[in-house]
Amino acid sequence: PGTIDLVFFLLPGKYIEDMIEHCKQKGVKAAVIVAAGFAEVGEEGAQAETKLRKLIKKSGIRCIGPNTIGFINMQANLVASFVLFTNWQDGPIALAAQSGIFGGAVADQLMARTVQRLGICKSVAFGNKIDLDETDFLEYTWKDPATQVIALHLEGLSRPRSFLSLANKVKREKPIIVLKPGRTDLGARASASHTGSLAVNDELLGHAFRQYGLIRADDLEEFLEYLKAFSYQPLPQGNRVGIVTFSGANGVMASDELRQHGFELADFTDSTWQRIKKFLPSWQPATHPLDLWAALGAGNRLVHEEGILSVLDDENTDAVLVILLALSNADFEGIGEIYQAARQQHPEKPLFTVMLGGEVKDKWLSDIEGLSMPVFETTRMAIKSLQAMHWYARIRDRMQPDPRLPDADHLN
Amino acid sequence: PGTIDLVFFLLPGKYIEDMIEHCKQKGVKAAVIVAAGFAEVGEEGAQAETKLRKLIKKSGIRCIGPNTIGFINMQANLVASFVLFTNWQDGPIALAAQSGIFGGAVADQLMARTVQRLGICKSVAFGNKIDLDETDFLEYTWKDPATQVIALHLEGLSRPRSFLSLANKVKREKPIIVLKPGRTDLGARASASHTGSLAVNDELLGHAFRQYGLIRADDLEEFLEYLKAFSYQPLPQGNRVGIVTFSGANGVMASDELRQHGFELADFTDSTWQRIKKFLPSWQPATHPLDLWAALGAGNRLVHEEGILSVLDDENTDAVLVILLALSNADFEGIGEIYQAARQQHPEKPLFTVMLGGEVKDKWLSDIEGLSMPVFETTRMAIKSLQAMHWYARIRDRMQPDPRLPDADHLN
Repeated sequence: PGTIDLVFFLLPGKYIEDMIEHCKQKGVKAAVIVAAGFAEVGEEGAQAETKLRKLIKKSGIRCIGPNTIGFINMQANLVASFVLFTNWQDGPIALAAQSGIFGGAVADQLMARTVQRLGICKSVAFGNKIDLDETDFLEYTWKDPATQVIALHLEGLSRPRSFLSLANKVKREKPIIVLKPGRTDLGARASASHTGSLAVNDELLGHAFRQYGLIRADDLEEFLEYLKAFSYQPLPQGNRVGIVTFSGANGVMASDELRQHGFELADFTDSTWQRIKKFLPSWQPATHPLDLWAALGAGNRLVHEEGILSVLDDENTDAVLVILLALSNADFEGIGEIYQAARQQHPEKPLFTVMLGGEVKDKWLSDIEGLSMPVFETTRMAIKSLQAMHWYARIRDRMQPDPRLPDADHLN
Repeated sequence: PGTIDLVFFLLPGKYIEDMIEHCKQKGVKAAVIVAAGFAEVGEEGAQAETKLRKLIKKSGIRCIGPNTIGFINMQANLVASFVLFTNWQDGPIALAAQSGIFGGAVADQLMARTVQRLGICKSVAFGNKIDLDETDFLEYTWKDPATQVIALHLEGLSRPRSFLSLANKVKREKPIIVLKPGRTDLGARASASHTGSLAVNDELLGHAFRQYGLIRADDLEEFLEYLKAFSYQPLPQGNRVGIVTFSGANGVMASDELRQHGFELADFTDSTWQRIKKFLPSWQPATHPLDLWAALGAGNRLVHEEGILSVLDDENTDAVLVILLALSNADFEGIGEIYQAARQQHPEKPLFTVMLGGEVKDKWLSDIEGLSMPVFETTRMAIKSLQAMHWYARIRDRMQPDPRLPDADHLN
C-alpha cells in the first residue's frame, strides 16, 4: 500500500527484468541496480545491458546503475549503498564516481580521517549509466543548494556535447573538478576493458575541458587536494603570493613551485616590513620568503601570530602560503586561535599551510580542525591547488560557444 | 687529562675564536660549530666566516658548521645535535642536509612514523661548510659499511668538480639521491639569501647530475619516497611491470602512470593466466591490469595471496605494483605473511604497493611493518620511484669522463 519512491536492487542480473515489471505496476519512481556483469564483461553482457536499457526507458523509472554501489544524500538522510559508512561528514561537495568500489574506497579513506576532513553532501557511483549519467548529476547538483563544489570521476562521457554545454553554464556558479583517467593509450585500453567506455581522443577532451571551464585533476591525489582547497577556501584574486616559512630551505623550495606554477612573490608594503622587523633579530636581513625561525626568540606564539597576520594583512598579497615546522622548539598553545583570527579578518584571501614535523604536528592539526584551513602534505600540492583556483577565478565568467554546435562532433 | 675527539660549540659566534685556540692546544681533532650569523646574513658575517675558516684550517681541526644542528652516527652511538630525537631508527640511509633546522624537521617527521619507517645510520647538517662539505660526506659514506643509500639535500656545491668526479665512482656501488632546490630564478634568489650559495645554472647542473649518475629528486616528497624505495627494495632488471589491483578504476590510473614514466604492462605467461583463472569468476575476462575485486568471492586471503604471488612469479614481470582496497569487505588476517612469502620467494624483484582505505588500511600497514615493503600514498609516486630505480639500474656501471677536466669549468 502507498507509493514507493526508490527500489534498491541487490539481485543477480537475471532476476532484474521481472522486478522492473513489478516496479512499474507499483508506480515506483526510481531504482538503483547494483548487479554487475553487463557491458563491462563483453558481448553477452552488452546485449543484456541493451535489453535492460530499453526496459527501463519504457518503464519511465529513473535508474542508477547497473554495476554501482548506490548513492548517499545527506539532506534526505538517505544512504542507498551496500557499503557501510560510519562517520560520514556532510559538507559542500557533491561527488560522483564512475565505478562503485573505487568510489567506496575513496569515501572510506576520506571518512576515516580525523583531521582535514572533507564534507560530502551528495555521492553517487554511476556504474554503467543505462539511464542517469554525469549530465543529469551536473544538472541536479547545479540546482542543489547544499552543493558548492562538484566533483566527477569519469571514464567516459555519455553525452559529451550536452555535458559540456551544461558545464559551461554551471561553472559560472560552482566549480566542476574532473578526474578523467585514460590519458594515455595504455590507460584508455585499460578503461575500455574496465567499463566498456569508448576511447576518446584525450588531447581533444583536455582541450574541451579547459575551453568550457572544467578543472581537470591529473590523478587521485590532485583530485582530492583540489576538493579540499575549493571546499575550504575562497578564490585568489590575483597571482601575488606571500610566503611565511619557519625554514629557509622550505622557502627556497616554495619559491621554485611558485615560479613553476605561474605565481609571483608579493612585494610587501613598507608597513608590513616595519611590523615584521619588530620581532626579527637585528642581524637577520628581511627577505621574502619570510624566514621566521631565528625570530622565535621573541616568543613562539607572538612570532607565529604576527608573522601570519602581517603577511595576510598586506594589500599586495592575493594568497598566503605558511610553512610551519611543528617541532617542540617551536611549540605553543593556541595555533587554532591564530587561524581563526586569520579567517575572520580575511575571509576573502586564501590561506594555505604546509606542516613539517612529528608529534607536535598531530597536536597542531587537531587544534585547527573544523576551521576549514587546508594543510597540505607537500608544497607542490598546495601551490598546484592554488593554481587551479587561480585559473578558475579567471575563467569562471567566460562563456564559450555552445558545444552542441556541429564543430564539437569530434567529441562524440 | 686525556685526548678529546670532538668538541660541540653552542657558543655565540664572538667566543669561538678563543675556543678554537684552546682546542688546538688540547689536541682536539674535530668540532661542531652551531652558531649562526655568518655568511648567510650579509657582508659583516661573511668577513667573520672568512676569518673563522682560516683559523680552522690553520688549527688542523676538522669542522662541521657553522650554522648547523650537528650530526648523528648510529654506529658510534653518537648524537651530537642540539635537537632532541627520540625513537631514532637505524638503517641503510646516510642523510645530509644543507641547513640544520630543515634537516631536523624532516628527521622529526620521519622518526615519528609508526609505519613505513626509514632507517638512517648517519645524519649531518652541513651548515655553512667552512671545512667539511658534501664531497667529504660522499667519501666518508662511500667507505662506511653501514651506508647503502646516500641522500643529499644541497643548496650549493663547494667543489663541484671534485664532487662529480667522486660521485661518478661512488654511484657504481651506492645510489646517490640529491634534492637540490633553486631550480628556478625565484628559487635561486631565495637560496642565495638563505645560505649565501652562489647561483649555478640549474639546467647545466641537472645535466651534470644525470651524466654522472646522481638521482635527482624534484621536491621533498620525491626525495623521501625515493629513499624509501631505494632502501627497501632491489632494483628492477627491466621495464615490464605487472599490476595487481582490487579496483579497475585504479588500474586505469596506474596504466596512465606506467606509460608516462616509460614502463610497459608485462605480458603474463600462459601458466600465470591459468593460475589466475582458477579464482577469477567465469564471467570476468582475464585482462591486465589484473582486477581482482570480483574474485574476492573465492576468499579474501586466497585471492590476495595467489593474485600477488602469481604475478610476482611470472618470468615476464620485472617489477610488480599492487593496488589494495583496504575495506572491511576485503579484510582478512595475515597480509604480513603474504608479503613475507613474496619477499622470500622473490628477493630480486621490486614489489610496490598502494593502499586505499581507512581503518583496515591502518591494520594492514601495521601488519606489514618491518618487512621493508614500501607502501605509497599515490600511484604516481610509486611509479616515479620505480622509474628512478630503473634509470639507476641502467646507468650505474657507466663511467663518465672525469669532470675535473677543463670542460667542466662552467660548473664552478
